[in-house]
Amino acid sequence: MNISVIGTGSFGTSLSMVLNDNDNRVMMYGRNQDTVLEINESHTNDRYLKNIELSEGIKATASLEEAAAHAELLVLAVPVNAMRAVATELNGLLKKLDKKVLVVHVAKGLELDTYKRVSQVLEEVFDEDRVTDIGVLSGPSHAEEVALKQPTTVSTASIREEGAKVIQDAFMTDYFRVYVNNDMVGVEIGGALKNIVALAVGALSGYGFGDNPKAAVITRGLHEIARLGTKLGANPLTFLGLTGMGDLIVTATSQHSRNYRCGQMLAGGMSLEEATEKMGMVVEGVNTTRATYELAKQYDVDMPITKVLYGYLFNGISEDEAFNALMKREKTSESEGLKQLLESQIKNSK
Amino acid sequence: MNISVIGTGSFGTSLSMVLNDNDNRVMMYGRNQDTVLEINESHTNDRYLKNIELSEGIKATASLEEAAAHAELLVLAVPVNAMRAVATELNGLLKKLDKKVLVVHVAKGLELDTYKRVSQVLEEVFDEDRVTDIGVLSGPSHAEEVALKQPTTVSTASIREEGAKVIQDAFMTDYFRVYVNNDMVGVEIGGALKNIVALAVGALSGYGFGDNPKAAVITRGLHEIARLGTKLGANPLTFLGLTGMGDLIVTATSQHSRNYRCGQMLAGGMSLEEATEKMGMVVEGVNTTRATYELAKQYDVDMPITKVLYGYLFNGISEDEAFNALMKREKTSESEGLKQLLESQIKNSK
Repeated sequence: MNISVIGTGSFGTSLSMVLNDNDNRVMMYGRNQDTVLEINESHTNDRYLKNIELSEGIKATASLEEAAAHAELLVLAVPVNAMRAVATELNGLLKKLDKKVLVVHVAKGLELDTYKRVSQVLEEVFDEDRVTDIGVLSGPSHAEEVALKQPTTVSTASIREEGAKVIQDAFMTDYFRVYVNNDMVGVEIGGALKNIVALAVGALSGYGFGDNPKAAVITRGLHEIARLGTKLGANPLTFLGLTGMGDLIVTATSQHSRNYRCGQMLAGGMSLEEATEKMGMVVEGVNTTRATYELAKQYDVDMPITKVLYGYLFNGISEDEAFNALMKREKTSESEGLKQLLESQIKNSK
Repeated sequence: MNISVIGTGSFGTSLSMVLNDNDNRVMMYGRNQDTVLEINESHTNDRYLKNIELSEGIKATASLEEAAAHAELLVLAVPVNAMRAVATELNGLLKKLDKKVLVVHVAKGLELDTYKRVSQVLEEVFDEDRVTDIGVLSGPSHAEEVALKQPTTVSTASIREEGAKVIQDAFMTDYFRVYVNNDMVGVEIGGALKNIVALAVGALSGYGFGDNPKAAVITRGLHEIARLGTKLGANPLTFLGLTGMGDLIVTATSQHSRNYRCGQMLAGGMSLEEATEKMGMVVEGVNTTRATYELAKQYDVDMPITKVLYGYLFNGISEDEAFNALMKREKTSESEGLKQLLESQIKNSK
């Protein structure tokens, strides 16, 4: 299959390696001429994936039109806040080229001002006669480990479902296992909102808290993600899967996660601006915390961890206040939040 | 409240500290005279909790009768394989003393030959007129961190439910939060079976696998725990909670976990005997893997990770065979196992 990967970041690059291993013809698109040259000539992408050699089969271009012309499948591996602009440009090119493609994105976040999932943004932007389907690929998949061919499992979902099967075939290798899931909302919400919990747990870790409090926040974090997700139309069981609990574990317990590390830096005394600048890569959890905070208000869902993190990131509430708000709540039955989930689940499945 | 903690291991000792902080009169029972002396005179328990000072309010005894005479609440903090013998002795003493107590255990495993949960063993052993209720306390709670007053959250459940509220009151402090859960089966199964996954993930880690494959095994591990648990009568949502996912995360991603470390040692080339001897503490996951393997056959539940680990531990299947069995299965839809859960959940809640 002819596949263009839009974005030369660490995830886009490691996915290009998977797609190339699976005998697709892969073209990467990047705005940065130096990176494009490095991929084509040195077969490396050292800024994003240190000490990794790319196959000579992977080509790169700085022309979005060339990438659009090449593609039967378009993989959008750009940050959430760049998605609308890139998609708009691509849609224009597809019109000009008079062609129709399958689109899959791999971003994990919500659009800042609209609070929309990425597939909702893409559906808005792409003309109906330019895309066969719009999908998402998500799951516990640190780019660094994918590049090393560590066994990795992810899920894919698409609006019309046929797309998901094509995406699965394009990506599935021995070491990169792709499962089809029919819950687009749940897959996207799980992937996006786990970054909030990762930021919070990173901060806890930075303040010297141990595994017991981290487990508490991760567990309750997944509950609040599931509560909002269910209100938005997701199947609550999706949050028990790879794109929910699986990705949350990887993100909230690993140094590989930039959201986790960003939280640690904040706890170390850096400002939000300093920390995100130091990361040098987009920390999706920051904007997603803001968007989710607003969504929770709009849908009247109790999201204590998101609320506390929002206050900590944007309203200057102190570590102590945040901690007290999180740990000293007067709840004494574990099932409260879960009951709510159960009810909606039963309703959904009728 | 007068509380006797049976067992002077790391968890029993840290729980004694919690109970003492909460103004209970705590007596610990241990068979080892030296440990009893150390607790009473040096106010330490250095073998199990290094560099921790115990309150002088915590007394220890080597007389089980003295402990039984002292107790309104009995906390059983001994390994699963010692539980039946200790409970039998205690029941005799309660008869002799003509008294009735509340019993709570904190063990995480299944009895080897009967495959029973610990509360089932206790219900068999204790005469009805000797116990007001039998409960369990479980959750993500490394003893080392509890002793350092790291914020910790656990669940409690009991057969008659009133007991759980008393247990909650006895243990609940600012840093040790106890939630009541009414699903005894789910709480015990989650706590016991997560040790299987921890062993498996520890071994993966020992073989050099990264966070992506670990997340895959943890996620699928929780699914298979929930599948069996549901067949045994648990509410599947319990596995999304502190005693399910929460405890699994802590156990399967932390060096504190002896099951995880044992798995690492096996991967490093030690035999099962060498590894468990080196740990110096009981590795509950080993017996629980055996018991769960048998239960899964008996109840006809698909438990691939348990099955592979059983083969690896007891039948000498190689790392490669184990790995292939785990990662290269031909499943392509994520929802298969989950659907099964959903159906039983709906049935349960009707």
